[in-house]
Amino acid sequence: MKNITILGVTGSIGQQTVDVCLHHQDEFNVVAMSAGKNIVLLETTIQKINPQVVCVIDEKDCNYLQEKYPHIRFVFGSAGLDEIATIDQVDIVLNAIVGFAGLLPTIHAIESKKDIALANKETLVVAGHIITKLVKEHGVKLLPVDSEHSAIFQSLQGNEMNKIKRILLTASGGSFRDKTREELVGVSVKEALNHPNWSMGAKITIDSATLFNKGLEVMEAKWLFDVDYDQIEVLIHPESILHSAVEFEDTSVIGQMGTPDMRLAIQYALTYPQRKKLVNGKSLDLTELGSLTFKKPDFNRFHALSLAYRAGKTGGSLPCVLNGANEMANLLFREGKIEFLQIEELVEKAMNAHELVKDPTIDQLLDIDQWARDFVLKEINETCRRL
Amino acid sequence: MKNITILGVTGSIGQQTVDVCLHHQDEFNVVAMSAGKNIVLLETTIQKINPQVVCVIDEKDCNYLQEKYPHIRFVFGSAGLDEIATIDQVDIVLNAIVGFAGLLPTIHAIESKKDIALANKETLVVAGHIITKLVKEHGVKLLPVDSEHSAIFQSLQGNEMNKIKRILLTASGGSFRDKTREELVGVSVKEALNHPNWSMGAKITIDSATLFNKGLEVMEAKWLFDVDYDQIEVLIHPESILHSAVEFEDTSVIGQMGTPDMRLAIQYALTYPQRKKLVNGKSLDLTELGSLTFKKPDFNRFHALSLAYRAGKTGGSLPCVLNGANEMANLLFREGKIEFLQIEELVEKAMNAHELVKDPTIDQLLDIDQWARDFVLKEINETCRRL
Repeated sequence: MKNITILGVTGSIGQQTVDVCLHHQDEFNVVAMSAGKNIVLLETTIQKINPQVVCVIDEKDCNYLQEKYPHIRFVFGSAGLDEIATIDQVDIVLNAIVGFAGLLPTIHAIESKKDIALANKETLVVAGHIITKLVKEHGVKLLPVDSEHSAIFQSLQGNEMNKIKRILLTASGGSFRDKTREELVGVSVKEALNHPNWSMGAKITIDSATLFNKGLEVMEAKWLFDVDYDQIEVLIHPESILHSAVEFEDTSVIGQMGTPDMRLAIQYALTYPQRKKLVNGKSLDLTELGSLTFKKPDFNRFHALSLAYRAGKTGGSLPCVLNGANEMANLLFREGKIEFLQIEELVEKAMNAHELVKDPTIDQLLDIDQWARDFVLKEINETCRRL
Repeated sequence: MKNITILGVTGSIGQQTVDVCLHHQDEFNVVAMSAGKNIVLLETTIQKINPQVVCVIDEKDCNYLQEKYPHIRFVFGSAGLDEIATIDQVDIVLNAIVGFAGLLPTIHAIESKKDIALANKETLVVAGHIITKLVKEHGVKLLPVDSEHSAIFQSLQGNEMNKIKRILLTASGGSFRDKTREELVGVSVKEALNHPNWSMGAKITIDSATLFNKGLEVMEAKWLFDVDYDQIEVLIHPESILHSAVEFEDTSVIGQMGTPDMRLAIQYALTYPQRKKLVNGKSLDLTELGSLTFKKPDFNRFHALSLAYRAGKTGGSLPCVLNGANEMANLLFREGKIEFLQIEELVEKAMNAHELVKDPTIDQLLDIDQWARDFVLKEINETCRRL
């Protein structure tokens, strides 16, 4: 029996993790969970799972819930998050918090010797150099939950002694993959949220449309699998069936395929190295699909991908700037305050304005993240003033 | 350093094995080799490799070679084959003998505790029930060399504890994959030998055109990976890039891909579980290909595949009959004595005429193999007499 903390339980990954745990109650015991402001969904989840400790953001929500569910312990804020990420009896922390906010709980969980099932890619994007050291130091497992990284991780099994030649990181291309750059002018939030293959949260669906998501994944792969950036090749694969692959020294390419279902990656991170039946999982039928297609990404069309490679290769604090600026710009787009193409533009401006820190500490990263967000806001406000 | 015996060194697999060994002389030492009647190629190979012992079929060839290369020991016939399959210092026997003739040397090598790199699929097709027991009894490794089985084997690495749900065995469809059954009437040997993707020996190229090769591979997979026949699904995949794949319980499909190059499978069997650089190996470029296509095989069009599933599911001596009859019919077609579609017809007649032996011994299998070959010859002679 594995004792689990789920961080970000009301998000898309969090809810699918709950499903996986409910399907295998003899394997998994959800001890604790955290949520943001979606208290309605949190309550439904509490009733399904009956955890021992629950963390919310606001003290008010905490008090309300404590009164209603007196047998459960409720905590709040970042202190609460730390508490549930470090509970003694917990074996593994599944971190599905969206964005930079997922960084500190990951660090605290590692320091408490918990294995980490990581859906929060920002943790590695901004602080890969710190996290990978901590993981080694505390001897914990860092298990990817992203479907692409899970695919790479699965493809690497039994090849511990073999050198990676190249990682083939597949990308659906997002909602706008068939649009030219010109056609991206004036696209709506609703269009951007209409992902062709995957059902995901709003932030990541927009990131898929810009390809910043793939850019973050490139950086995540670099840290998870200890490769250079020129060993990571992004392939546009519209069908999202080959979730990613690895080429070894002998030119053999091992890849993981399947129907798009995030629960598989979540479950593998929790059951690894074993596999369990995926309840209501749909077997892949390649003959029904007929064909899998692949093309090189156009780095001019997908400028976000160029920015991500630039940030990754430069290293230091630049990935943190890219990530922070993108989080803010992504939000502003969803709020209807900027155009789709401005997301990239603002991220690039922030990257250009930033003074690089080579080996940033966590405290520096917290400041730089804030700086990048503020930079984007300031840019927008100045543009508005000028108009 | 691994000491190796190569059985069938002048065939296509044998020669590619020599290449692999010459490329990694610090890893592999070819101690012994066998050949049939291609003495010219055998001499070239001897000059490249300088083995200690060489086996040929004929005593005359043996004497001729012994005089010419006095520092090498030459042996002949089945006693000679036994000798080189069981040399003390040899670690692994790569068996690339074509057809039923490969069975006995495999058995003797296993009994001498040699690991087996098996390119001779007939060994498992006709005597899987005996071989798998022997392998366990003597604690040796049975490593597949066929590209499809190597792909499955590679896909299974790191999944030792996980149940196989399904094996996806890919098939190019052979030289005639786009022809209807009607269009197969009167096709020539030359056309049949023109395989779209792989460069292989003549017997196996004809087997690819009939799909008997895929049928034999289905049976080989059954024994190698301990699955039921209804867990093995053949997929027509004209590009021969996905060499085969495995679906696990959780619906995850792990597959092995690469440009068609038999040396990869040969080398992996020899270096397993490590991988080594494949000299002049070509990296897979999925974007250059653009797409991978898949369709279900039509069992009416590819009747040989139905016959193979029937033989496999029936078990006992029936696979031996299918294999022996096919070896003879394949040869008669190559000699221009029968039509392409008669191959299947003759194999089916032999299967129908055979009285099943449930758990045949090696001696019974030797007799049944001979009976099946004679049956096919007799059928042809009778047809000729009637005409």
